[in-house]
This record gives sequence, C-alpha cells and structure tokens, in this order.
Amino acid sequence: MFVSKSSLETEQQHLEGFAPEVAWITKAGSSELAESIAIRPTSETIMYPTFSKWIRSHRDLPLKLNQWSNVVRWEFKDPTPFVRTREFLWQEGHTAHASEAEAKEFSLKMLDHYASIYEDLLAIPVIKGTKSKNETFAGAEQTHTLELFIDANGKAMQGATSHDLGQRFSKIFNIWYENQSKDKENVWQTCWGFTTRSIGAMVMIHGDDKGLVLPPNVAEYQVVIVPIFKQDAAQKEQINTKIEELKYLLDKKGVRYHVDNRDTYSPGWKFNHWEVKGVPLRIEIGPFDLEKNIASVYSRFNGEKKTVDWDKLGSFVPKQLKVIHNQMIRNARKMNKRIKIVDSWRKF
Amino acid sequence: MFVSKSSLETEQQHLEGFAPEVAWITKAGSSELAESIAIRPTSETIMYPTFSKWIRSHRDLPLKLNQWSNVVRWEFKDPTPFVRTREFLWQEGHTAHASEAEAKEFSLKMLDHYASIYEDLLAIPVIKGTKSKNETFAGAEQTHTLELFIDANGKAMQGATSHDLGQRFSKIFNIWYENQSKDKENVWQTCWGFTTRSIGAMVMIHGDDKGLVLPPNVAEYQVVIVPIFKQDAAQKEQINTKIEELKYLLDKKGVRYHVDNRDTYSPGWKFNHWEVKGVPLRIEIGPFDLEKNIASVYSRFNGEKKTVDWDKLGSFVPKQLKVIHNQMIRNARKMNKRIKIVDSWRKF
Repeated sequence: MFVSKSSLETEQQHLEGFAPEVAWITKAGSSELAESIAIRPTSETIMYPTFSKWIRSHRDLPLKLNQWSNVVRWEFKDPTPFVRTREFLWQEGHTAHASEAEAKEFSLKMLDHYASIYEDLLAIPVIKGTKSKNETFAGAEQTHTLELFIDANGKAMQGATSHDLGQRFSKIFNIWYENQSKDKENVWQTCWGFTTRSIGAMVMIHGDDKGLVLPPNVAEYQVVIVPIFKQDAAQKEQINTKIEELKYLLDKKGVRYHVDNRDTYSPGWKFNHWEVKGVPLRIEIGPFDLEKNIASVYSRFNGEKKTVDWDKLGSFVPKQLKVIHNQMIRNARKMNKRIKIVDSWRKF
Repeated sequence: MFVSKSSLETEQQHLEGFAPEVAWITKAGSSELAESIAIRPTSETIMYPTFSKWIRSHRDLPLKLNQWSNVVRWEFKDPTPFVRTREFLWQEGHTAHASEAEAKEFSLKMLDHYASIYEDLLAIPVIKGTKSKNETFAGAEQTHTLELFIDANGKAMQGATSHDLGQRFSKIFNIWYENQSKDKENVWQTCWGFTTRSIGAMVMIHGDDKGLVLPPNVAEYQVVIVPIFKQDAAQKEQINTKIEELKYLLDKKGVRYHVDNRDTYSPGWKFNHWEVKGVPLRIEIGPFDLEKNIASVYSRFNGEKKTVDWDKLGSFVPKQLKVIHNQMIRNARKMNKRIKIVDSWRKF
C-alpha cells in the first residue's frame, strides 16, 4: 500500500505526474514520522526495484505480473461513486520483455483484451485509440486507451489504458538482462490497468429508472425463479417439484439462477426486489402455469413477458440470455450515434 | 482503506485499543488536510454505521459479511515477514444476529472453521481457547483464539481470532431490528479474522534447510514431473508420450501437476528448483524407467525416493499426497510435546 518518498521520487517525470494527488502519512499513533510515506497511486516504483533483482537472463523473460489492489489518488474534482473516487480498486499488470517489438505488441494485445471485457461481458461498445503526447501516462512512451460514451450525461469515459513504457523505467531502475550473445540490455516494459469504474459505466449505460439492468454474462444470478402459491400445501409441493426439474435443466446448461422461495414476502414484493437488482430474467410459476404446462418469462432489460412451454424452457433460457446480451450492446451502439468526429478545434 | 477520525472515535474502548498503532494521513499533494484521516486498522467503525441502515427487521438477520482487505497497524515491535508486518492482508468477517445465543454459537463456529483451515489444509495442529480479559479485542465481550506452537523459535503464535461482540457496538452505532413482536432490539454481533500470517506459520513449521515444504492440500503444484532425456529425439518422444498418459491419469484424480520440460535447464537444476519451492512430490521419468515401465517418485517432506510401477502411478499419487499430509501434521504434533501447561506464575 505504501511507497517511500525516495522511491516515488526515483523517476522524475512519473513523480511530477502524480505529485498533486498523493496522500501522505506523516504520523503513526502520536509520533511524527521521520520521512513521510506515500499511499501508492500506482505501483511502478514499488515493483520495479524488485524486477531488477529478479531478472538476470533472457530466460527470465517475458516477466508478467498482475494484481488487484487498491490505490489512492487524492482527486480534487467532484468524486462520483465508482467513476471518480479517491480510493479505487483496480487491476494493474506489469511486464518486461526482451525486445521493443514484443513489448509494443503486448501493450496492444492487452487493450484488445480489455475491449473484449467491455463488449463480451459488460455489453458496452468501446472505441480504441492512442492518447496525445499531453495525455500520455507519466513516464510512458505511448498510452493506448479505451473510451466509452455515456449517453446519460453526454460524456466520454476512459475505460482502461495500456502503456508502452519503452526502456525509460528499466534504465532508471536498472532492470538488465543478459541476451543470447551474453550482452547486457535493458528490458522493454508495459503496464496496463482496469478498474471498478467499469461497473460504474455498466450501471450508467444499461440502468433505467427502475434500477440496475445487468448484462447476462456478468449477472451473479442470470435468472430468478419466483414460485407463486397461496396456502394450499399440495399445490405448493407440485410447484416445488416443477422447480426442482427446472433447476436440473438450468444446471445442465450452466445457467446461474436463484430460487426466491421466501414465505415472508409476496410475489409482487419479490418481482420489484429483483428488478431493482437487475437480474436479466425472471421465471414465474404458479397454479395457472402448472395447469397449462407453461411458465412466464420476464426480461428485465425491455420489460417484455413471454409465455414459454415448460418443455422448451431448458433451451429457451440460455438462448434468451444471448439475445439479451446482443440487444443490450446493440442499444448501446445506437446511443453512440451521437458521437461526432472532429479533426480541428474550429469544428469542435 | 480510510476511516475518518470521528468515526474511529465513536467507540471509546475500541479506539483506545488501536490508537497507538494508527497511521494518519495529514497531507494530500502539498495541501494540509482539515481533519486527519486514519488508515483502517480493522473495519468495525467503517461497516457498522452502514449496518444500521441495512438492518430493519428480523427478516434481515442474520447479516453476514466477509472481505479480504489490507489493514495497517503501525507496530513498533520488530517486523517479521508474514508474521508481524505493518500492512497485512487479512480476511475479516462481521455478522449481526437476532439473539445472543446465536451470536455466541456463531463466533465459536468460526473458530472451528479456522481450526479446520490450519489442520486440514496447512497441516498445522492448533490449540483453541478464550483470551483473558486483558487480551480481549478492544470492545468485544469475549475473544476466542487459535494458538500455534513454532518449534523453531519456541514461541506461540496467534493463528486466528473470533470475537463475540455482544451488543456494545450495536448500541453505539444504533443497529436496531424489529423482532417478531414488533419491538425494537439491538442486534448481537460477531467479528473474526484470519491473515496471511498463516502462510508464515506454514513456512516456519514445515520448512527445512533446503527451503519450503508445502502441505499437499495448499500446494499450487502437488506434483512436478521432470523428464530426463539426452538429445535422442525418438527417446524424447517416447517419454513425452508417457507423460501425456500420466497427465490424463492425474487429471482424472484431480491432482494439480506441472511438467517442467524446459530445454534450457538440466534435470539436477530442476530438482533443486522445485525442492526450494516445496512441491510435495517429484516424478522423474527417463530412458531407464521407460524400459522397466516404472517411475521414480520423490517426497519433498522426508526426502524419500520410491520406485513405482507405471500402471500403479495413477492411484499411488493421490494416496501418497494424503500420506504426506497426515505425516506432516503428525510431525508437527510431535513438536507440540514441548508445550507444558502451567496454572500459576510460580510454575512458569
């Protein structure tokens, strides 16, 4: 969590980029510390001194490290939950390579990987690009970025970045390797990050006035099953047997579901509860459905309710989850039509 | 990661317990903060104000939360890697219950759970007990603990704790629920923690002069397979085919293995490499073994090497991993014979 002041100061350009946002510990208990200690805003200057000890030979390369950790940037702009917070949880990766080409290629590969997380899991379309010199990460050669468009406020949001660090850090932190001809060379590095801000984007892009709308691929529960019954014990047992059948079918298809069979709440209360939480599909089964051998299936993202033959439910559910994902990303792409490309300040 | 000063000060006894070890942030960038901010030494005063918003009715209980997080206690004693560090990663759990009996029972259940992690996963015998009033967690009614004995230095180590908090925090943080007769009552709470210190205990108890010795149930690789071959390509292919067979057998048994087929290192170098890393079993297979349809199996924890018929390898490996676990915990129990029970200071 900590970086010593001297360690943070090793790379001057890097330090200048972060200095205004660093939180400093100056006291422990009631004692003043001799040297202030920074809370990490990012981990380059913590990790790279160790890289120089670990890397000796071309056989140690590529070195690839990844961690989820929390970092602090004391933002003075308006904090927004998930999107702009002083402490945030992120995933940061750091690699060292034997050649410039390999590092450059890897930094672009990570950008593709992040794009896939947004598009294939969160149903959010992204725009890939490279930052201007002015916006490049402090100390990097090049910064690649994913940008998202938030229709709700008409703003762009940075979704993830991947940096080609070149040899700047490896020269300053003395990260050398012996190549196949026994010469010493500095490694070529990359680093890249992705944060819980992505959850904020997902909420803003897909959510509606009723609450969350979760994309099926990331929903903890893709389906909630709500039995509808009165006090009739025999009927209740029949419905529960039916639900056991359905659970078996869904398990086989790898669908994540939850059965809400709490006695203390009414079906209406439960419908609302799971709508607010954004569960993609709700399956209702009551005495009437039992009689007709059907179930009612409600799609959270568009509010449509369908009647599905019981025998078809096992194949309908996974198919419908895919349909929902595709529809959600299509809807988000439509919003992106508001984006205009300008190539001069005059046209802005 | 942060606790405001006022929030930390809410429970006086709790604050006094931690005050000497709290790290304080007083500056952000070059600005002094109006109020110092503490780095969490534990999360009660961060979580419980939210508990009071979440809990309304007996239907919301029990509430059980669990997180892995890093906390800071600015220890002025000698830091020891894993065992006593100023920042450490831990798992902390917090629950709220509708009755005192349920909370008390739950805090003991968690202690049993932790004991099982030590005994069944880490092969470390533990002693369960309850702390004296003086050593009880700041603000708790009762603190239950697991203690381990480290033969290497003759010291005891606290392995995990589980606290019965009673209603002290729920009274201070206003955590109320409506019981079935519509009366308002304060909840009964527990909290409990377990840290990466357990890894330090594992290293000290099982490790030897060659390096780590990992208990099979927590080893990332339970088996390393080292092929031994010269430059003969046909022989190499034969051995690799044999290894593919073995991988299939081990997969079926759910054994975690790694094949070290790097060309750049000698078998001797690899043996040493995986011994230092503590992999429980090493399987060597070379031309000689191929001929006789056998393999050599080396057990890291006692240095024994056995010759096993190829046809029996698939059943031998999982059985041997269990034998190793049982032997390791038995060895650790033997060390515990040095423990003497004293019931007065005079006999100490």
